[in-house]
Amino acid sequence: MNVGLVGVTGYSGSVLYELLLHHPNVDHVNLYGHAQKEAQALEEVLPQLRRRTYILPYNPADIMENNQMVFFATSAGVTTELAQPFIEKGFPVIDLAGDFRLKSRDVYQKWYKKEAPDFLDLKNSHYGLADFTSAKGATYVANPGCYATATILALAPLVKNHLIDPASIIVDAKSGTSGAGKKLSESTHFSQTNENLQLYKVNQHQHIPEIVQQLQKWDEEVPYIQFTTTLLPLTRGIMASCYAKAKSGITEDDVRNAFIQTYSDTTFVNATEGVFPTIKQVVGTNFCDIGYQLNPVTHQIVIVSVIDNLLKGAAGQAIQNFNQMFDYEPGAGLDLIPVLP
Amino acid sequence: MNVGLVGVTGYSGSVLYELLLHHPNVDHVNLYGHAQKEAQALEEVLPQLRRRTYILPYNPADIMENNQMVFFATSAGVTTELAQPFIEKGFPVIDLAGDFRLKSRDVYQKWYKKEAPDFLDLKNSHYGLADFTSAKGATYVANPGCYATATILALAPLVKNHLIDPASIIVDAKSGTSGAGKKLSESTHFSQTNENLQLYKVNQHQHIPEIVQQLQKWDEEVPYIQFTTTLLPLTRGIMASCYAKAKSGITEDDVRNAFIQTYSDTTFVNATEGVFPTIKQVVGTNFCDIGYQLNPVTHQIVIVSVIDNLLKGAAGQAIQNFNQMFDYEPGAGLDLIPVLP
Amino acid sequence: MNVGLVGVTGYSGSVLYELLLHHPNVDHVNLYGHAQKEAQALEEVLPQLRRRTYILPYNPADIMENNQMVFFATSAGVTTELAQPFIEKGFPVIDLAGDFRLKSRDVYQKWYKKEAPDFLDLKNSHYGLADFTSAKGATYVANPGCYATATILALAPLVKNHLIDPASIIVDAKSGTSGAGKKLSESTHFSQTNENLQLYKVNQHQHIPEIVQQLQKWDEEVPYIQFTTTLLPLTRGIMASCYAKAKSGITEDDVRNAFIQTYSDTTFVNATEGVFPTIKQVVGTNFCDIGYQLNPVTHQIVIVSVIDNLLKGAAGQAIQNFNQMFDYEPGAGLDLIPVLP
Amino acid sequence: MNVGLVGVTGYSGSVLYELLLHHPNVDHVNLYGHAQKEAQALEEVLPQLRRRTYILPYNPADIMENNQMVFFATSAGVTTELAQPFIEKGFPVIDLAGDFRLKSRDVYQKWYKKEAPDFLDLKNSHYGLADFTSAKGATYVANPGCYATATILALAPLVKNHLIDPASIIVDAKSGTSGAGKKLSESTHFSQTNENLQLYKVNQHQHIPEIVQQLQKWDEEVPYIQFTTTLLPLTRGIMASCYAKAKSGITEDDVRNAFIQTYSDTTFVNATEGVFPTIKQVVGTNFCDIGYQLNPVTHQIVIVSVIDNLLKGAAGQAIQNFNQMFDYEPGAGLDLIPVLP
Repeated sequence: MNVGLVGVTGYSGSVLYELLLHHPNVDHVNLYGHAQKEAQALEEVLPQLRRRTYILPYNPADIMENNQMVFFATSAGVTTELAQPFIEKGFPVIDLAGDFRLKSRDVYQKWYKKEAPDFLDLKNSHYGLADFTSAKGATYVANPGCYATATILALAPLVKNHLIDPASIIVDAKSGTSGAGKKLSESTHFSQTNENLQLYKVNQHQHIPEIVQQLQKWDEEVPYIQFTTTLLPLTRGIMASCYAKAKSGITEDDVRNAFIQTYSDTTFVNATEGVFPTIKQVVGTNFCDIGYQLNPVTHQIVIVSVIDNLLKGAAGQAIQNFNQMFDYEPGAGLDLIPVLP
Repeated sequence: MNVGLVGVTGYSGSVLYELLLHHPNVDHVNLYGHAQKEAQALEEVLPQLRRRTYILPYNPADIMENNQMVFFATSAGVTTELAQPFIEKGFPVIDLAGDFRLKSRDVYQKWYKKEAPDFLDLKNSHYGLADFTSAKGATYVANPGCYATATILALAPLVKNHLIDPASIIVDAKSGTSGAGKKLSESTHFSQTNENLQLYKVNQHQHIPEIVQQLQKWDEEVPYIQFTTTLLPLTRGIMASCYAKAKSGITEDDVRNAFIQTYSDTTFVNATEGVFPTIKQVVGTNFCDIGYQLNPVTHQIVIVSVIDNLLKGAAGQAIQNFNQMFDYEPGAGLDLIPVLP
Repeated sequence: MNVGLVGVTGYSGSVLYELLLHHPNVDHVNLYGHAQKEAQALEEVLPQLRRRTYILPYNPADIMENNQMVFFATSAGVTTELAQPFIEKGFPVIDLAGDFRLKSRDVYQKWYKKEAPDFLDLKNSHYGLADFTSAKGATYVANPGCYATATILALAPLVKNHLIDPASIIVDAKSGTSGAGKKLSESTHFSQTNENLQLYKVNQHQHIPEIVQQLQKWDEEVPYIQFTTTLLPLTRGIMASCYAKAKSGITEDDVRNAFIQTYSDTTFVNATEGVFPTIKQVVGTNFCDIGYQLNPVTHQIVIVSVIDNLLKGAAGQAIQNFNQMFDYEPGAGLDLIPVLP
Repeated sequence: MNVGLVGVTGYSGSVLYELLLHHPNVDHVNLYGHAQKEAQALEEVLPQLRRRTYILPYNPADIMENNQMVFFATSAGVTTELAQPFIEKGFPVIDLAGDFRLKSRDVYQKWYKKEAPDFLDLKNSHYGLADFTSAKGATYVANPGCYATATILALAPLVKNHLIDPASIIVDAKSGTSGAGKKLSESTHFSQTNENLQLYKVNQHQHIPEIVQQLQKWDEEVPYIQFTTTLLPLTRGIMASCYAKAKSGITEDDVRNAFIQTYSDTTFVNATEGVFPTIKQVVGTNFCDIGYQLNPVTHQIVIVSVIDNLLKGAAGQAIQNFNQMFDYEPGAGLDLIPVLP
């Protein structure tokens, strides 16, 4: 099959493009630039990909004619402007940006600081948390955010099974700089980032409502959570260190069973009691590794999850959703070589 | 005055030596190696210091005869073996290791996994948390640990003023590799540490009882806290991200006032509401910078403190204690040039 | 086909194992530990590979019975001890270590500081510089060293075409820490490596005779070259910055033509005039990218080559040799996803 | 005495400001912003300096009235515009920028790509290579560039004593990112710089003519040299790896004697035969450490020098010139604490 990709030049877009080129069920990938007026050789903008092809001008009709689905790996706000023709025709879209993740217009407005456009069909988009949902039959998939993926996967077993006090959740999340994209900024200037640790958007990160929305599906008593984001002096990877108070009477067995039941049948999530994962062990892969431990003294549970923010946190999970949408093997195109060492 | 220094070859020891050489009230520093049998030229072991002097063989009588006080910057367990003659004579000691920090023999045994020797005079050592205590008149100063310093300074205003639920304290602490010292290990092998984040000693770090001991002095209801330590891919600096639930009715004003009252007269601690510090802004200095914020939605307070683990977390605080002990200016020898950039 | 791999636990070995698992012509990979007495679960030593298999005890007869060829990714000196039974039977070996690279026993003795064993059949090993030779028909392939690969590929067009004064060659090579392997050492201790640049083995690196041996095949007037090795604060990648004086009368056209003729038909070497490559553009791939420029003022030619030391400099080139040996496509198993970003 | 400083906000400027505040002969430092219209609190732009003072509006008359000399730590081109009033009055200036370093208008035009203004009094500026010259009596000091300092100090003993073939000089220089300043750029975006090595301005760096101008003072046969600059994934430090062919008959003794004679009386330059320095050993100090070795096989001499680019390569050498200008101790204000580790 042929697939379209809008936005190959960003970090997630380039990674997604490479995954698609190696996907056993994809015949051809057509590239489009959402602000492109004329075809441009990919080598001019991304020579390191060494692919002789073109980024084509943006035209929804062409995209729909020449592909069976399209990925958007564009910046926040772009699909709000562009998605309508695809939605109207019911043409399959997987959107890596945040525009269609929130179901509530009020929440959207609060966190994105602008009103959701009337045509924004939030209700009918599918939030593609691939290890818990299936995109089969969906036409518009909103691929989860990187922090959201790491955090939700860490907390899911405890929230779903009502093992923790929902008001006690604290997430201390850390990310490498690739999460901030290609755009130059003071906080990602090498002399500033290197040998440093910088907090940003404390309690203000736009992934918070997305996390809360999902957790509330499982336990509506989950309130707004405490969420801290820290910029690491490394390029790739996220670690979400999560803390929550076990409900009275909850034992180590309860916690362990919840993780085992939740993840034993998944392809990409591994949870281990008492062994905390490192970022590096998942870089280059689509895995989410989780370590957890109930502290018998404080009765706090520590849950630490790690992902590669550009794979499981973006392009990799998008492929999982793609596989579900078209009924391919869950791991198709995702048997990746980890970065060693 | 002349001072002795045992253990110049470790990271804290070399930094302390340089501070002492630049201290306006120190005339001469005599170096000793606790396992040294013969004098050894310093240049052989630490050529980058460019100092033409010798590390002298260890001899307590000589040390006491030729100096007015002595610093120990030795590994854990060494002063347990060596301190007795100095204690017996009441000779002033500032000990950068953890051996004399805990007051309770039971706690010592639990965390250091061995019985405290009979002669270990834990009760009479002075825990030199320099921004809260004075070492004036003390003869044996136990200099606080690096994680302990960052954490206690972050939590002190809230604990002392009983503003938080003491059972809700969670500390997500991160440290650069210099905290692990010169000793080679797999987790500090460059190919392993670089581009990585590694947890270690979760809820097991030996600084935990030291933190709890101090917090309980201020509020005896503080239980064992949740404490996570993460190894960062950078050399110098600690960030302690602390979380605690505000007691019912506590307002932003209460929190702000507590920080202002606690730290407005200190030389080296700066606390700012709503502005979170970066590690780099304190590297090369003796400052502890703190940012704090009460989240009105979750009623959690986030407090983030940063220090240079080898200065405020070790050698710098030792100089503060030295200044108190001998009645020098609080900031003497500590007007340091920050690492820019 | 089934292949054996001795030495999966080293950095090159793990990378090679992953490449083989993804190789379209390999059915099964059997792992062996050269010092292994009993089978050991791979997950115990390399959990991040997530492969449920065993490292089998070392037994040459078993290896030859159960595989059609064997790779050695063992430390220097190991194949000197182990290779004989395979050589005697003419069983195909690809050896990633340096033991069989040098043809002269005198040179071997000089650089490896020990006499080459009598049975060491140096003459009949095939030096597998894969872009210039074919391993078809060879039974014992000595896979080139990482520095040697980067340097020889940079200099080949100029040496083969006699465009430079052979006595003027200077190589300023730099490598990431993965080249030094897993073994702990002071120079790869994070606090020492980070924010640092360290020279080592200046004019003494064991890849020098290997480089000279190959260059002399093309121009016997090439003398011992000037070769500097510098340890970079990064994990993966080599850059070889090479300098040589153009012979009198040599023009930019001559230089350009030499590079074009040499590399236009290769799969993995790209040379561009006036554009110098970065290390990152080849990390995760088997490519060697080269930039070159004749300085018309100094008449020096600068040639800069970059490779991923564990791929093109080790496991990737080994796969090239494997493909040649068994007549597979030159790029089989090497269509890798680059590390982006 | 009072000194003025124009340009505190850049990296060199902030470091210079801190040095001046710690200098025993400086009473007060007045800060000026060359584009400043109104006084601005320093804490607003450089909070990490923790200094309560103001950056004053730029006014040459005020500067000359309130100070005994002025430093310019401004970007390239700024002093070309601003220096005239000070030169006319013979008011002492130390200029850290490149504007007045070149003596020849032709060379200036070629490398800076614009004509030197008529008023640019290149002839009368003093090129302050502090270990070889004295700024005593000079009124306008052009402080050398960072690459120029490292390179000239490495080559000086050999060039002055005519021990090498001047046409054979090759410099492979590497710098941390702080040399590129605060300005954002793609090559210093963390995700691009990190885990990478990038060449830039090969044979085009504006420090080349400055190096050649100085070397030609010592040996007019020195032609334009081969000069490569590489951006390192670290913040501070320069390493210049220099290569040159020894003239026929030159021995190791000749080389050693040249280095000993040249540097044995200097305060800040240390040269050692056969031991190559690391960048880290000079970071935080004003030292230039040099290692050198004559390769008896190739008859090439390798000379490797390291400096802290912001100290010896900028602000530190400016202090050396300041000390010479006002007859202070050569090392006044420069007994710095190295960055350990």
